[in-house]
Amino acid sequence: MIHKFKVKTAASNEMAEITREVQGIAREAGFEDGICHVFVPHTTCGLAINENADPDVKRDIIAKLDDAISEDFDYRHGEGNSPAHIKSALVGSSLAVFVEEGALQLGTWQGLYLCEYDGPREREVWVKLMKG
Amino acid sequence: MIHKFKVKTAASNEMAEITREVQGIAREAGFEDGICHVFVPHTTCGLAINENADPDVKRDIIAKLDDAISEDFDYRHGEGNSPAHIKSALVGSSLAVFVEEGALQLGTWQGLYLCEYDGPREREVWVKLMKG
Amino acid sequence: MIHKFKVKTAASNEMAEITREVQGIAREAGFEDGICHVFVPHTTCGLAINENADPDVKRDIIAKLDDAISEDFDYRHGEGNSPAHIKSALVGSSLAVFVEEGALQLGTWQGLYLCEYDGPREREVWVKLMKG
Repeated sequence: MIHKFKVKTAASNEMAEITREVQGIAREAGFEDGICHVFVPHTTCGLAINENADPDVKRDIIAKLDDAISEDFDYRHGEGNSPAHIKSALVGSSLAVFVEEGALQLGTWQGLYLCEYDGPREREVWVKLMKG
Repeated sequence: MIHKFKVKTAASNEMAEITREVQGIAREAGFEDGICHVFVPHTTCGLAINENADPDVKRDIIAKLDDAISEDFDYRHGEGNSPAHIKSALVGSSLAVFVEEGALQLGTWQGLYLCEYDGPREREVWVKLMKG
Repeated sequence: MIHKFKVKTAASNEMAEITREVQGIAREAGFEDGICHVFVPHTTCGLAINENADPDVKRDIIAKLDDAISEDFDYRHGEGNSPAHIKSALVGSSLAVFVEEGALQLGTWQGLYLCEYDGPREREVWVKLMKG
């Protein structure tokens, strides 16, 4: 079974936290122990784990990725969103988070993020729970 | 059990689609539901999920990665393929894809790719199926 | 159950091999077949698979990442370690390695590495074993 939820992003590039939504799915399913796999069925956004405290970290990740994978390049893809596809390949489309006693096991400063590179859009996030 | 197949790449840098091969392994194994893990036992190629429609997307990913991780740098590794190792660390060596009713669950535009960074070569791809 | 061990890094940026430690955990647990998931609960270090032979490969990965995600940028995060957060998002915080007959299944040249981007520090590595 795959659990799905939607995320509306508000900018062309954005890191939208989804920790609470993913934790909620595990809790509602009564999932106690194992791996919580998260996946996005898109090629111009991705998933990452990063700091959940200072919002400037998200801003810096987005800004530096924009700088490293700049729009100013001889791209051929006609839709004009090649940087988004490249960021998606680099950052990745999936996460695997440990679960114990029903709780996602994350470090103190870690949150789960949907990384939008070609928004604003409505995105889908898929979750699959694998018992340990 | 690990299922293995080979991919012959034709260029120094290339994205070779392997969706059909991976789906075929799951089908032949009668695998219905769970996670399909994919892995490459190499340090100068990788695995990524990206667009399967316009081939220009693959071309742009390869070209921009070449630009960002350029050969023009003070590398010390004697084999001259340091950019390939770096791309491998960035893009990653494994994928985890959801399977339901025997079918890989991917977005409309998603395909699985072996990313060659130091070809042409014959590469191995490993698949392990974990029941849900 | 999550198995945990610590790694002391010695430099600001470093790739510390952890293959033996992870293999040791699988062996002590009597784990025969499945997936060995590895995770770091930190946002300024990561995990990667790469070459275990020539140490210059590690040096080149670190040096080129430093060059591509340079400190010389208009970052806002006050702690001054934004490049470490960005490398963490790019390289990733987890690995999934196949296990058969009690042995991690890796290519000849592959090793598992904790990638330090903001050291020296003491880091934790978490391992969860999922039966096949």
